[in-house]
Amino acid sequence: MVQMTLQTAAEKAADALARLRVEAPSVHCLTNTVAQAFTANCCLALGLRPSVTDTANEIAYFVRDARALLVNLGTLAPDRRETIGIAVDLMRDEGRPWVLDPVFADVSEPRAVFARELMGYRPAIVRGNKGEIAMLAPTGEDAAAALSAETMGAVVQTGAVDRIVAGASRFEVMNGTPLLAQVTATGCAGAAITAAFAAIEPDMAIAGLAGALVMSIAGEMAAREASAPGSFAMHLVDRLAMIRPEDIANFARIRR
Amino acid sequence: MVQMTLQTAAEKAADALARLRVEAPSVHCLTNTVAQAFTANCCLALGLRPSVTDTANEIAYFVRDARALLVNLGTLAPDRRETIGIAVDLMRDEGRPWVLDPVFADVSEPRAVFARELMGYRPAIVRGNKGEIAMLAPTGEDAAAALSAETMGAVVQTGAVDRIVAGASRFEVMNGTPLLAQVTATGCAGAAITAAFAAIEPDMAIAGLAGALVMSIAGEMAAREASAPGSFAMHLVDRLAMIRPEDIANFARIRR
Amino acid sequence: MVQMTLQTAAEKAADALARLRVEAPSVHCLTNTVAQAFTANCCLALGLRPSVTDTANEIAYFVRDARALLVNLGTLAPDRRETIGIAVDLMRDEGRPWVLDPVFADVSEPRAVFARELMGYRPAIVRGNKGEIAMLAPTGEDAAAALSAETMGAVVQTGAVDRIVAGASRFEVMNGTPLLAQVTATGCAGAAITAAFAAIEPDMAIAGLAGALVMSIAGEMAAREASAPGSFAMHLVDRLAMIRPEDIANFARIRR
Repeated sequence: MVQMTLQTAAEKAADALARLRVEAPSVHCLTNTVAQAFTANCCLALGLRPSVTDTANEIAYFVRDARALLVNLGTLAPDRRETIGIAVDLMRDEGRPWVLDPVFADVSEPRAVFARELMGYRPAIVRGNKGEIAMLAPTGEDAAAALSAETMGAVVQTGAVDRIVAGASRFEVMNGTPLLAQVTATGCAGAAITAAFAAIEPDMAIAGLAGALVMSIAGEMAAREASAPGSFAMHLVDRLAMIRPEDIANFARIRR
Repeated sequence: MVQMTLQTAAEKAADALARLRVEAPSVHCLTNTVAQAFTANCCLALGLRPSVTDTANEIAYFVRDARALLVNLGTLAPDRRETIGIAVDLMRDEGRPWVLDPVFADVSEPRAVFARELMGYRPAIVRGNKGEIAMLAPTGEDAAAALSAETMGAVVQTGAVDRIVAGASRFEVMNGTPLLAQVTATGCAGAAITAAFAAIEPDMAIAGLAGALVMSIAGEMAAREASAPGSFAMHLVDRLAMIRPEDIANFARIRR
Repeated sequence: MVQMTLQTAAEKAADALARLRVEAPSVHCLTNTVAQAFTANCCLALGLRPSVTDTANEIAYFVRDARALLVNLGTLAPDRRETIGIAVDLMRDEGRPWVLDPVFADVSEPRAVFARELMGYRPAIVRGNKGEIAMLAPTGEDAAAALSAETMGAVVQTGAVDRIVAGASRFEVMNGTPLLAQVTATGCAGAAITAAFAAIEPDMAIAGLAGALVMSIAGEMAAREASAPGSFAMHLVDRLAMIRPEDIANFARIRR
């Protein structure tokens, strides 16, 4: 197997962004109450069609119309837990992708247990920080790769450098800015965007890469206009509305 | 019956805004978790006194002090559903107005059933998009008029053009900007503002018109300062704080 | 006992801010759904490490890592009420401070009853407006002092002038701007910041004072850049990121 070059990967991610804008997929976001508004605004800025209802008796009606699903485990209320079970079951039945963001699974034991149960529903992409990925992975050694092997999907390990692992595909994204960590829910919103890419891009390595690149390059652009987190958050949303496929192709800094 | 001229209608809406600022009504907002903060901020910017508690055991204490009530059906948790029943009952008993925003009633069947039940509590104004109004109306033909006839209140059908129907009164508001649809909860906030107008204006056609004009003209002003949704949302809140009655009278673009 | 001078108090508050930035304490915020995102963003801007999970079955895992706890009674869902009981019990056992913000305890009777129950768990600081403090205090005459005597902690009574009472210590903070009241959740965020100060400052009078000064001086700075609430809110977060200990020492306007 010939590996794709890094330039090809960046171009594929850029192409995915072009298709994302044209297809404007619906993405249902089962996410924590802190992140709901910012996530919806980031999705809308990119041209996506987000919805966020999280009640068990209504979720089937929203999932029916969703091309992708985000499951974020923050502020995990009992009703949302039940809702998640119904939603991932439906997505699996329909063969549509869902993305897991196991927020603080490394802090809360019940959350870790629940997150591990969800592995059986085959998330297309698991996206979390190093501690969260390590908690979910079957082994500690190269946890992201081990988890990718188990789910047969992609794993995006976020941090100063975002790592994407999907089977044999490996990318590291060096774009970004420390300001992204100074605004709440940028990671949650990034996972929602990643879910949208999973709806329109069959290669989950490229979907995970595109999600990481869009958020981190938009972040770099926003950081050139704002040096403090309040104004940065505003510019970030603006930049998500303005970012073009060629920005991805030109500014991506990727390594294996 | 002599119909009021469109100029008179705009002046009545402008006058309603002048009284809104003086009376600063309390408006209780039973709304979805995505929209709560933005709705409260839009209300505060206009000088209103919003509250948002949504628990069944406490709602009576908040409704007691509220001059108007917003019921928004987004993220409809079981407890909020019970709370809504108590709240609309109390408002009806007190003869104070409440506004229904039947978010996604056209997507979720249980939500549509609940929304139709609420019709019995006579919302002063129903404010929703075309699909939502069609779902609630007794007949499909001129759904807004049919629903207005049933509730004996006003119906505001939002869209690129907002339609207001209240008995024989008809207005269409052509103000607005596509940016309003690129920020989450602008419609929800618009419904809260409309509820506040219902508290201080006896003619529900004018209350619905004033709510539509304030949000869409403030939106136009914000769109002159910002072309992307992050900064637009900030300027929109600023403009709600600054908008004057004469802005309504001067910039309203209304037709029948 | 020699009372500290007001200049000394301001310098102690400034020193507390310096230590806050170095220690970057974790603060768990059990707060209303309206305030969660803004509170988290204000905390992050100051360099704190906020978390907000509010489920009863997970709270122990988050409190374990928290150096301070905020309990805000807004939108008091039944599950959050149970969570609060567990959390304050754990904090008391560990001898770590928690801050109570009894939002609208003067409006809702069940909330007032619950807030009074919580007095038995000895909040390090109670922070509320005049009506809320009066509702919780054992007597109406100088309610803040009476409540401080009961809890043996500090009471911060917010308003145009913030009053801090802790035993014999008394301060009044005259800094601030009316714009703070035109943005939702600035008080809630201020209480979270105050909780963080309680984690790193043993004198609760100084912790309460520092919390009041940081928010009101950052507010004054933001008000010099923005005259309307949308842009003010953004600049406020920016200023919380930029505010330095010397700003506290230089700009504090305190009296007894």
